[in-house]
Amino acid sequence: MLDQALKETADRVQTHLDLCIGQYDGTVAQAMTYASRGGKRMRALLVLEGAALHGVTPDQAVWSAAAIEALHAYSLVHDDLPCMDDDDERRGMPTVHRQWDEATAVLAGDALQTLAFEMLADPRGHPDAAVRADLVLSLARAAGAGGMVHGQALDIAAESADVPLTLDQITALQAGKTGALITWSACVGPVLAQADQAPLRAYGDAIGLAFQIADDVLDVTGDAAAMGKAVGKDAAAGKATFVSLLGLDAAKRRAADLVTEACDALTVYGDRADCLRQAARFVISRDS
Amino acid sequence: MLDQALKETADRVQTHLDLCIGQYDGTVAQAMTYASRGGKRMRALLVLEGAALHGVTPDQAVWSAAAIEALHAYSLVHDDLPCMDDDDERRGMPTVHRQWDEATAVLAGDALQTLAFEMLADPRGHPDAAVRADLVLSLARAAGAGGMVHGQALDIAAESADVPLTLDQITALQAGKTGALITWSACVGPVLAQADQAPLRAYGDAIGLAFQIADDVLDVTGDAAAMGKAVGKDAAAGKATFVSLLGLDAAKRRAADLVTEACDALTVYGDRADCLRQAARFVISRDS
Repeated sequence: MLDQALKETADRVQTHLDLCIGQYDGTVAQAMTYASRGGKRMRALLVLEGAALHGVTPDQAVWSAAAIEALHAYSLVHDDLPCMDDDDERRGMPTVHRQWDEATAVLAGDALQTLAFEMLADPRGHPDAAVRADLVLSLARAAGAGGMVHGQALDIAAESADVPLTLDQITALQAGKTGALITWSACVGPVLAQADQAPLRAYGDAIGLAFQIADDVLDVTGDAAAMGKAVGKDAAAGKATFVSLLGLDAAKRRAADLVTEACDALTVYGDRADCLRQAARFVISRDS
Repeated sequence: MLDQALKETADRVQTHLDLCIGQYDGTVAQAMTYASRGGKRMRALLVLEGAALHGVTPDQAVWSAAAIEALHAYSLVHDDLPCMDDDDERRGMPTVHRQWDEATAVLAGDALQTLAFEMLADPRGHPDAAVRADLVLSLARAAGAGGMVHGQALDIAAESADVPLTLDQITALQAGKTGALITWSACVGPVLAQADQAPLRAYGDAIGLAFQIADDVLDVTGDAAAMGKAVGKDAAAGKATFVSLLGLDAAKRRAADLVTEACDALTVYGDRADCLRQAARFVISRDS
């Protein structure tokens, strides 16, 4: 069920992104298309499944699904830059600044962020402008200096810090860096339907943290070929991670508990939410 | 009249930006505040004056005025990066990547862009969500891969091109790089008032182009101390500019004609638009 849903999500979102980026031409547009390809499309899946639970059609929800993937792609392009994580590969392909150059990577990331807000504000995404303005406002809060960018800055600061981060600090860091956008994705469905966001917010918060713990586990146990990027970087850099702070077994247990918590939060939706439950389990069982 | 309006605009916009960035803490927020200080606030003036012509209060319009200045600041921070224009000074101060480092400059620019959309979507900026969604959509179109970023990419490509740009190409480049955001600023007032945008759009298009021609003139005739940045860079780099294509005198005449055109477009507003007429003249008479 999840495999099929991820495949359908990927096709739908890629078609939409290609269409939207296709309005533009030039090198930056090419780099935007390149950077927006691939990936598991987990965030888009959360958007589309959450929308389905609330009777919102994929034709409407795909605008938000594509927006969150564009925003995610922007964050990866900038994160990979030499002055940030300095990564040469992403999803098994050269990173944008390796394929083109740094200026193109900066500009393509910039324009992918802009595109995310352009898609959210598009009247085709929802007939009610109040809903569209809400989505813009909530995504901006999740992505900006109080959300994702703040988390990234804390992450960079942690690398040169003398004292490793505590568990509370790393939890706060990850809540910003990856958690805020995952929770936003899970909440889009109820926002589009103007319904109660509480169950999907609890689900999103739990899998966001589980996702990051699983990432730290994969950095220790994972295989570079399957991941399509370097592994063991955090351990080599002496960075505090959930694994270094909790130990490998306790980190795995904590992630599993969070997945149970996430699944329990979906009770109100009955078995219609089984795909989201599978997604939660996948988050901690994936090998890449 | 213009001096007073620029001073009031600067105070109002800075207070608003400080308040909005003040929600956040950490190095990135500090760099955002630093990057958003200074400047002539011409774009914010266009917003506030255009709003006043349509009976929109400064308390509402300041949200859009601060948004366009945040977006402008983001573009300058990224434009100054070593992989782009590689500038050490901006507005007479060290650029963000010189004051901090490149990672901070990338992130502060990213978060300033996000903040621009956050401010536009804020319900305090306008009670009608359709207006707010419109502002987000139109700014995204002016700023992204079909607008400002596209212009910046063309500008970078021109530096390594074998053949200098033609007048048509450089006009298209500048329409994207600086023109789209200037026109957007001029149109905000009628958008907020849900009134006819045509006169202020014509005004904005004309002064946007005049502004860029004047910039090219200043790059030849200007004084580095007054400008707070290096001059003569374009000529030294052998780049085509309005001055190299038209000659200095014809470039100055073209800019003056555009200012006349801009002032004429405001006839419908009578003498209430005199401040905007002064702003148009200032665009080509400034020394920095």
